[in-house]
Amino acid sequence: MANQSNSSNGLSKGQLDKVALDNEAKLTTRPLPASCKVYLQGKQKGVQVPMREIRLNPTKVGNNGTAEENPPVRVYDTSGPYTDPNVQIDIRKGLAPLRSEWIINRGDVETLPGISSKYGLKRASDPKLNHLRFTGLRKPLRAKPGQNVSQMHYAKKGIITPEMEYIALRENQAMQTYQAESTQNDRQYTQHPGNDWGASIPSEITPEFVRDEVARGRAIIPSNINHPELEPMIIGRNFLVKINSNIGNSAVASSIEEEVEKMIWSTRWGADTVMDLSTGENIHETREWIIRNAPVPIGTVPIYQALEKVNGKAEELTWDIFRDTLIEQAEQGVDYFTIHAGVLLRYVPMTAKRLAGIVSRGGSILAKWCLAHHKENFLYTHFEDICEIMKAYDVSFSLGDGLRPGSVADANDEAQFGELETLGELTKIAWKHEVQTMIEGPGHVPMHMIKVNMEKQLEACDEAPFYTLGPLVTDIAPGYDHITSGIGAAMIGWYGCAMLCYVTPKEHLGLPNREDVKQGVITYKIAAHAADLAKGHPGAQARDNALSKARFEFRWEDQFNLSLDPETAKSYHDETLPADAAKVAHFCSMCGPHFCSMKITEDVREYAAKNALKEDQALQLGMAEKSEEFKDKGSEIYQKIK
Amino acid sequence: MANQSNSSNGLSKGQLDKVALDNEAKLTTRPLPASCKVYLQGKQKGVQVPMREIRLNPTKVGNNGTAEENPPVRVYDTSGPYTDPNVQIDIRKGLAPLRSEWIINRGDVETLPGISSKYGLKRASDPKLNHLRFTGLRKPLRAKPGQNVSQMHYAKKGIITPEMEYIALRENQAMQTYQAESTQNDRQYTQHPGNDWGASIPSEITPEFVRDEVARGRAIIPSNINHPELEPMIIGRNFLVKINSNIGNSAVASSIEEEVEKMIWSTRWGADTVMDLSTGENIHETREWIIRNAPVPIGTVPIYQALEKVNGKAEELTWDIFRDTLIEQAEQGVDYFTIHAGVLLRYVPMTAKRLAGIVSRGGSILAKWCLAHHKENFLYTHFEDICEIMKAYDVSFSLGDGLRPGSVADANDEAQFGELETLGELTKIAWKHEVQTMIEGPGHVPMHMIKVNMEKQLEACDEAPFYTLGPLVTDIAPGYDHITSGIGAAMIGWYGCAMLCYVTPKEHLGLPNREDVKQGVITYKIAAHAADLAKGHPGAQARDNALSKARFEFRWEDQFNLSLDPETAKSYHDETLPADAAKVAHFCSMCGPHFCSMKITEDVREYAAKNALKEDQALQLGMAEKSEEFKDKGSEIYQKIK
Repeated sequence: MANQSNSSNGLSKGQLDKVALDNEAKLTTRPLPASCKVYLQGKQKGVQVPMREIRLNPTKVGNNGTAEENPPVRVYDTSGPYTDPNVQIDIRKGLAPLRSEWIINRGDVETLPGISSKYGLKRASDPKLNHLRFTGLRKPLRAKPGQNVSQMHYAKKGIITPEMEYIALRENQAMQTYQAESTQNDRQYTQHPGNDWGASIPSEITPEFVRDEVARGRAIIPSNINHPELEPMIIGRNFLVKINSNIGNSAVASSIEEEVEKMIWSTRWGADTVMDLSTGENIHETREWIIRNAPVPIGTVPIYQALEKVNGKAEELTWDIFRDTLIEQAEQGVDYFTIHAGVLLRYVPMTAKRLAGIVSRGGSILAKWCLAHHKENFLYTHFEDICEIMKAYDVSFSLGDGLRPGSVADANDEAQFGELETLGELTKIAWKHEVQTMIEGPGHVPMHMIKVNMEKQLEACDEAPFYTLGPLVTDIAPGYDHITSGIGAAMIGWYGCAMLCYVTPKEHLGLPNREDVKQGVITYKIAAHAADLAKGHPGAQARDNALSKARFEFRWEDQFNLSLDPETAKSYHDETLPADAAKVAHFCSMCGPHFCSMKITEDVREYAAKNALKEDQALQLGMAEKSEEFKDKGSEIYQKIK
Repeated sequence: MANQSNSSNGLSKGQLDKVALDNEAKLTTRPLPASCKVYLQGKQKGVQVPMREIRLNPTKVGNNGTAEENPPVRVYDTSGPYTDPNVQIDIRKGLAPLRSEWIINRGDVETLPGISSKYGLKRASDPKLNHLRFTGLRKPLRAKPGQNVSQMHYAKKGIITPEMEYIALRENQAMQTYQAESTQNDRQYTQHPGNDWGASIPSEITPEFVRDEVARGRAIIPSNINHPELEPMIIGRNFLVKINSNIGNSAVASSIEEEVEKMIWSTRWGADTVMDLSTGENIHETREWIIRNAPVPIGTVPIYQALEKVNGKAEELTWDIFRDTLIEQAEQGVDYFTIHAGVLLRYVPMTAKRLAGIVSRGGSILAKWCLAHHKENFLYTHFEDICEIMKAYDVSFSLGDGLRPGSVADANDEAQFGELETLGELTKIAWKHEVQTMIEGPGHVPMHMIKVNMEKQLEACDEAPFYTLGPLVTDIAPGYDHITSGIGAAMIGWYGCAMLCYVTPKEHLGLPNREDVKQGVITYKIAAHAADLAKGHPGAQARDNALSKARFEFRWEDQFNLSLDPETAKSYHDETLPADAAKVAHFCSMCGPHFCSMKITEDVREYAAKNALKEDQALQLGMAEKSEEFKDKGSEIYQKIK
């Protein structure tokens, strides 16, 4: 196919058009129902924070047609420009590099003449790959010699970057909504106290607060200088709980276009970051397409690709191959790397008595390497070398838990906690280099053993953000592990976990399809949001309250539109009562007219409004009046039966 | 149709056959995969406890074909005779009345000449209903005058009933499995300590322990003397956590056959009790069919039917109508009644400031009655009269939480906790009458406010079993409320809740279909089991361990068969790797051959077996040997690339 090329990128014009058409036909770009994109303007140049604004219908307050407006609800929006109809999407060009000017203006980066990775160069010069290659590549950036371009470095110097201001606006929005709602409604909603587990979320998230948390290491802003397209976000327990979705091709399925759409699809439903776990062919090229089109940080596990380079033979991995892989990916713009540097030789035998052994892919690769060489994990021995690379591009560490338990029987054992201690040691080394760091966590853990995981992590890793997979609270429900893990995720989020890695219904069974990905993301949005509520996040409840108000007032469309998945909510409703009228009818489809349990309270409200009374007065008077009415009608009960 | 009848039941033989055929065609009676029914024999006559035994494949321990047997796993089985191929199912006849002899032999019941309810008599004599009526009716039983036939009464007298022995065997089985497993495998699995929240499950459940818990009021055995078909089960926090599934027809959908199949379907997946919440026509007849065919306790909310009798006008409800309804249902065999006797007049105004008002159907009916009459709730004023009925048939109370919160904003407010105090007061009155009692709970509660619900309930109601709906931990996910509530259910189960009332994905949106019911039941089995694990139930982990072992050993079929939903697990696996070979292949479909993270640990095991070493010795030696092997091959890494 490459030999037919007659343009610089190896594709004929006709072929290019074909690729573009194929791609665009598969992209999901429509806004969510009743939603539009609004932008909050920051003070620093280019700081424009997208939010999703959900329009609501007015509440009918009387039979005379009077209505009370319901203000639109603004929600945190991870979907990027794809849901903005004003933005022209062309995945061949990638998203606009909105951070480029910020990065350049800091004066500490240089533009390289080309990519530095040997492997990357080999791929770039292979004409057989022309048809797969992203066409509009920029030259990579790197820190000038001796410079550190990490957000942590700036934070420690007292600099509030545009990224930090962006995040402050983004995180703060929910609280503004909440305050608007509080003043708008005279009803007093129950205020939830914060919890005891270290979350100390201020009533306003300021840029200075963001800076301080990053400087302290309690939060990270994954934001590689080679991924200027991303909309800055933060991971830390004093902010909204975040979720990650995994995508990846494999030997069995998938294509580049599908991977890009999977990323778009995940962020549409709320994924805050996306990990590209591809293991098949062409991972280099796939990754480029994903990053150039990703509005969220992209994470990877570089050891997966390094292993591909040695044909799957773990024992043949070397520091040189791994180093080249880190640079290859850093120059593409990967925002965080999972590095399993805590899998030490001495911990491996601790797993032999386990029921499920080592279940982390990275962990098992490194355990194998350690065993084969009878030497210490080379990621551990080269950790400071890795730090040097990380700070030259601002790649964040996600220190992998290679020895996480793979069954509830193995939870919290010496191998798991041994590795955690080492991750704590590595955190301090990373911080010495001012490299942003988060810590990965389990896995399979029964409910009563979850909290100690969070506590030990906070202690061992000096409050670096925790990023957990689930945990799954039981092993007996393959096919439903989004749920077994969603339970554990909600709990550990409440206890202080900063980001939750999603699990799909296909976990342990197969590769997730589009619907599985959505199920996983929605389940994890539930877990993260439940955690925000339980942590007492000041603004988190605004959306719940708006939805409950809509429910109480039988504004069905608003209920759907405020929900995490409007399309499913609407379709479920329609399934039972397909008529459009049901959406304005004043009874709930669960019960039928006579059983509508919400009707009575609404009756009281109407009565109060009609008689210009407070609701409690209305209740008092109404009760007496209704009692009288009843007596006037004869108090005869049996006469009315049939 | 009735005028064509030429047989005593109003149906021609041809019609009867037609009904039977229609019914049986819809019933799900096949056993679950690789499962058979086994019966544990008790000491008392007729005590035969069904369990489901899941056969497992042997583990291959060497390449020479040697294999190690995996003992079958016995699990608690709620599915009744429907999954026993040796039992002839005929829903016209109903299930065998296995408890009849026990009940009669106690000598404290009398057989009534016919049903006592006026309404029931009217329905029984209406020829238009002949085609709907269950044909093989027994005459109802009632306690002889002055007698109390409740299990609590017997328990307090020190009598161990056959029901109690049955339950002891049933609950104890899981622990026997666990002990068998512990001795069979030399691996030491992590032992989980119990929690701090009052669960004190002994290492063996004896009949005496069951008796003592029932006498103390800490557990109930819902078992109406007119429901001899049920397989006794217990609800209490020192036993396995139970789940309830709701069924019910409505004006919009459903038929009698469908309702019976729904009950069968629910119990197939694990529902421990089923509530019949029917509100449409013919609820009397539907209920009869359900109870006669139900191997699990059936609960109802009698106020729903009472309201039907007054054409939906709450204010027209009277004690007489309600009393007649209780007797009608008690003589049919309903095992527990939800009674909203705690909705007091003075609590109603407390709900006016709520975001979602009163959301319990029963609560709203009684609030309406209270308001209309300006009088105290007649269920409260007649509570002792109700107790007299309950103890004459051994119907258990499920004291309804009519003022449960309907949004997280309304959680734990004064209306909710006020009602809970009243339920505590009523519990003591019920116990004075030796009537078995459990307490219903919320609802919508954010995670950090769940535990206090459990604590307050235990305190207010002197440890009577708690039975909660969810709770839902956020309001923003209609369409996914099985998950939002499953999170809360798992947590409150851990904290000590005895039974969890399921929520389906259609909650708030529409009537659940068959698939929704299954999703709800499976989600709640996950929650209940996760709670059992977290409570440190001695045997609960046996199934997790067996499944994890199967997973580790790539026994795919065993993984599917041990899971809560074997069919879904299998179909998900097949979707990605459809070949049958994948089920014995030694790699996980998630990762592909090179990434199989379980392979390494298995390598160590094989090496140990081959060289007759302990696994840790094997690891030490194997590491050195493998290292040598690697060097022997030249330690040349790059030569192997490509």
